[in-house]
Amino acid sequence: MNIQVPVEKIVADPRPGSRKVYQPGVLHPDIRVPFREVALHPTAGEPPVTIYDPSGPYTDPEAIIDIETGLLRPRDSWVRARGDVETVPGRAVRPEDNGRVSERFRVPEFRSKAPVLRGRGSEAVTQLAYARRGVVTPEMEFVAIRENLRREALAEVVRDGEDFGASIPDFYTPEFVRDEVARGRAVIPANINHGELEPMAIGRNFLVKINANIGNSAVTSSVAEEVEKMVWAIRWGADTVMDLSTGRNIHNIRDWIVRNSPVPIGTVPLYQALEKVEGVAEDLTWDVYRDTLIEQCEQGVDYFTVHAGVRLPYIHLTAGRVTGIVSRGGSIMAKWCLAHHQESFLYTRFPEICEIMRAYDVTFSLGDGLRPGSIADANDRAQFAELDTLGELTRVAWDQDVQVMVEGPGHVPMHKIKANMDKQLATCGEAPFYTLGPLTTDIAPGYDHITSAIGAAMIGWFGTAMLCYVTPKEHLGLPDKQDVKDGVITYKIAAHAADLAKGHPSARAWDDALSRARFEFRWEDQFNLGLDPETAREYHDETLPKDAHKTAHFCSMCGPKFCSMKISHEVREYAAARAPNEVEAGMAEMAERFKAGGSELNPRVG
Amino acid sequence: MNIQVPVEKIVADPRPGSRKVYQPGVLHPDIRVPFREVALHPTAGEPPVTIYDPSGPYTDPEAIIDIETGLLRPRDSWVRARGDVETVPGRAVRPEDNGRVSERFRVPEFRSKAPVLRGRGSEAVTQLAYARRGVVTPEMEFVAIRENLRREALAEVVRDGEDFGASIPDFYTPEFVRDEVARGRAVIPANINHGELEPMAIGRNFLVKINANIGNSAVTSSVAEEVEKMVWAIRWGADTVMDLSTGRNIHNIRDWIVRNSPVPIGTVPLYQALEKVEGVAEDLTWDVYRDTLIEQCEQGVDYFTVHAGVRLPYIHLTAGRVTGIVSRGGSIMAKWCLAHHQESFLYTRFPEICEIMRAYDVTFSLGDGLRPGSIADANDRAQFAELDTLGELTRVAWDQDVQVMVEGPGHVPMHKIKANMDKQLATCGEAPFYTLGPLTTDIAPGYDHITSAIGAAMIGWFGTAMLCYVTPKEHLGLPDKQDVKDGVITYKIAAHAADLAKGHPSARAWDDALSRARFEFRWEDQFNLGLDPETAREYHDETLPKDAHKTAHFCSMCGPKFCSMKISHEVREYAAARAPNEVEAGMAEMAERFKAGGSELNPRVG
Repeated sequence: MNIQVPVEKIVADPRPGSRKVYQPGVLHPDIRVPFREVALHPTAGEPPVTIYDPSGPYTDPEAIIDIETGLLRPRDSWVRARGDVETVPGRAVRPEDNGRVSERFRVPEFRSKAPVLRGRGSEAVTQLAYARRGVVTPEMEFVAIRENLRREALAEVVRDGEDFGASIPDFYTPEFVRDEVARGRAVIPANINHGELEPMAIGRNFLVKINANIGNSAVTSSVAEEVEKMVWAIRWGADTVMDLSTGRNIHNIRDWIVRNSPVPIGTVPLYQALEKVEGVAEDLTWDVYRDTLIEQCEQGVDYFTVHAGVRLPYIHLTAGRVTGIVSRGGSIMAKWCLAHHQESFLYTRFPEICEIMRAYDVTFSLGDGLRPGSIADANDRAQFAELDTLGELTRVAWDQDVQVMVEGPGHVPMHKIKANMDKQLATCGEAPFYTLGPLTTDIAPGYDHITSAIGAAMIGWFGTAMLCYVTPKEHLGLPDKQDVKDGVITYKIAAHAADLAKGHPSARAWDDALSRARFEFRWEDQFNLGLDPETAREYHDETLPKDAHKTAHFCSMCGPKFCSMKISHEVREYAAARAPNEVEAGMAEMAERFKAGGSELNPRVG
Repeated sequence: MNIQVPVEKIVADPRPGSRKVYQPGVLHPDIRVPFREVALHPTAGEPPVTIYDPSGPYTDPEAIIDIETGLLRPRDSWVRARGDVETVPGRAVRPEDNGRVSERFRVPEFRSKAPVLRGRGSEAVTQLAYARRGVVTPEMEFVAIRENLRREALAEVVRDGEDFGASIPDFYTPEFVRDEVARGRAVIPANINHGELEPMAIGRNFLVKINANIGNSAVTSSVAEEVEKMVWAIRWGADTVMDLSTGRNIHNIRDWIVRNSPVPIGTVPLYQALEKVEGVAEDLTWDVYRDTLIEQCEQGVDYFTVHAGVRLPYIHLTAGRVTGIVSRGGSIMAKWCLAHHQESFLYTRFPEICEIMRAYDVTFSLGDGLRPGSIADANDRAQFAELDTLGELTRVAWDQDVQVMVEGPGHVPMHKIKANMDKQLATCGEAPFYTLGPLTTDIAPGYDHITSAIGAAMIGWFGTAMLCYVTPKEHLGLPDKQDVKDGVITYKIAAHAADLAKGHPSARAWDDALSRARFEFRWEDQFNLGLDPETAREYHDETLPKDAHKTAHFCSMCGPKFCSMKISHEVREYAAARAPNEVEAGMAEMAERFKAGGSELNPRVG
């Protein structure tokens, strides 16, 4: 079978110095929550470090990876056990679902098909509905265990941060997760047809998450490349992946991605709907859009970007902008509204959209179609008018038990970032905010992962729950594998910097473990604890290639002759055993010791 | 003559799409203030964009570059015209100045020697002394013109920013610069022996500046490489360069760098002093240090990092830290203090250091030898005790008419950054703050340009006047040319993001010009206005290589089929000519137009 998926391209190895470990549930003993454990050098005298791990079975040497059959589906039994779903025949795949691709270029359908589930009758099978009824689902317990990173419930937690009114607990319990979901302050994007999923939470009282976008372009990329990019993105830390494919084969490619994805998959159904009407925005109809929603709900997509806030009366507010409407979905809907001089069908049909999504537990990501595309347009009337509507729609969705997050900008200078967060919290009732960057300046095409990481770290600190990555190719071209990696690592930095600043109880241990490794010249530990061990090692070896230098008590910055870390060790050893008042008194003794041992303490080489 | 300087390695071309322009002075008609001017495509209907340009004559095709003779020295006549300097014989170069390098490995002395100047008698020949006397120097007028970026004095300025109590004017006058220097709120690092200098200001009421560190290592790098790195760093936007060389040839290499540098050069004299005592910190003496100061003052170094705040009683405060003392200068002095159980000679001899520096106008950069080296150690007692001392020393230096800036950390999580700025402003009387990053997390070795750019942008916004870059190799190895470029561009982003957020009147025009180019598909303008035109073009061409695509009204993200920018143009054209109340009324007409022109407005390809 010509599946165009050379399996050897999928990177499926453990990360250096790490092993996969699992923690079982208590309420639900069959759940297995994955972590990455980094063992430290024996001289460290420290336990291994546990790191949040969205990479799925691909980094587990015990797992059997066969992307033609997809991942195992442990969630199916959890979903069925709730007794509120039924098997349905499922919508038949039509030629337009794959952009009417000819036989010759067609990506094969995914072979292994699980039965399609949906909520029985008008049942809301959403985590929100269960949470409101007081049910702690396996998904909720999974999330609670995951966020604790194997800390003990009663371990002392030093809280050091400014969380701007968030309510981050010292320890996550399944009940806390349930309560956050019930309040709408967190979502667990988890389509009942995504049995392969390892559940995760997005909410400002949890670790800040990041999303990576992938997707084939109108030009070309094979299903192999897209699955590979998804696996690659989660390997480096992407918590969710959006498939923004357009053009041919998008139905089939999506199947391959979802069936092989342990993380939530998001899409913009409008893109596929537009393909079905051959790219003519004016020809979009509610029926085509509705059909696409059902198609993707059945495939197991976990969240949908829906640009329902781009209302007809707001469109002219963009006329005076420097960069107009930069959201693809936003401009499609603007064009439709203008062409028909009608209110957007995404807005008028919003309750019907909710009805569909609640039957599969697909989470809303309310799109910011009028987000600013330049510093000049930040925080303008168009943007905030749309945000008000997103707040209104959040409540409509909540009334129907549908989970909601809200998308945010975009391009925003630093001094206007906090206003975005504050307004979103106030307007959208604390529904999770999910922002693209924001980029803090427009002058650096080719470096917008960095211009945006600055804004992302800040807005993450202020309360954004998930950060959508930006790659170096933003504004210029389509990201390749290296760009995906650069984007993910840059955003892991932003998210973790935000976690630290918020005082998330699981955040600091990682930094401290790495800093101790640095201070103690445990080079291997320093590499392995880093976000990118291979690159750190490579940079180190450029200057000091020998194996012996991996244990050397110096580095290439100061060289062996004089090392600032070494003198610190001497100061520390001296002071460690003494009470503070003894330290001053003992300085004279120290002086003698240094005089005597000067040359030994300061070895010369070469 | 074997000078080890292959001149062809020095990149000395104009940047793409740019030309060098000069603006003369008014008070001092012989000054020529350089700018980079980016001409836009004729269809833009916009004037060229003026960009701040520290790259010196290297990007001027009219300039004759001969690094063996060095740059021209226009400043010599300004200095001599003040009538307060005398020519002195100058200190003879000694073998230990170059680390006792053997004949075989010796870098040749710089051939072309200008006479050595110093202040006559005990004259303070500093910009601070002149400013206090009400004298507007050519250096001050140069700076005023430079900061205005050729804006007109009476042009309307839209101020949009939050500057946290800074006093940024709408337009810079020479008198404003004089006043800022007189208050100590800005420095113009400008050794009277650095005749090649193009003056620049560091202060929170000016554009945020960045510094790049270069320097040979104990291992090897030739003088050619170091001059090349300096030219390379300023090409991408470094405003000052610190030469942190150690080991052999440092005197001679420094000569080559200063004689070819249009930007201020900073050093850490302690590093060379340590070389002179063969790396044994305990053997350092005031005499050796003093001799090194004079040596470097005579060479024309513009600012010195002096770690005079590392006092004996503070050292034990670092004992409980996770990463102890991470500053090289700080640890050298800590070792000296402990070995002798004496107060640091940099502290006890501080008034004498001032006396020397005022005779050449070398600016203090008061070193933060006790800065935190990890998130865990941020804002601790040791750090803030030293900062209090730096405040005390700032006043001592000011009393002697010596210019001062103050160095800051380091590793600081986001929620603790502002406290650093606030405390520095309060403690050091608004003397310019000059920070290294700060890094906002420790978990990303290999990406610390990014972990630190987040902190740098924020602290720049809060009021830091100059940001010391961090390269991807930080903590791992010595930066090569690519690392220098990555570090400089990343820090230009941070500095400019800060300028925007502060509302610097010269900042926004650049972003807006680029955003208009983006919106109007002027791809060449977009590349040329970017911080790195070559990389932006390369990324674009990876997906759309053809020349025709440089004028294409679409890009590779959405492809030609549906482009969000295009619909925005249609909305804009529709609304532009109409009053707001007409817009709503005219929507029906618009609807018709779109229906009629649907296919034409939405061309298909392929």
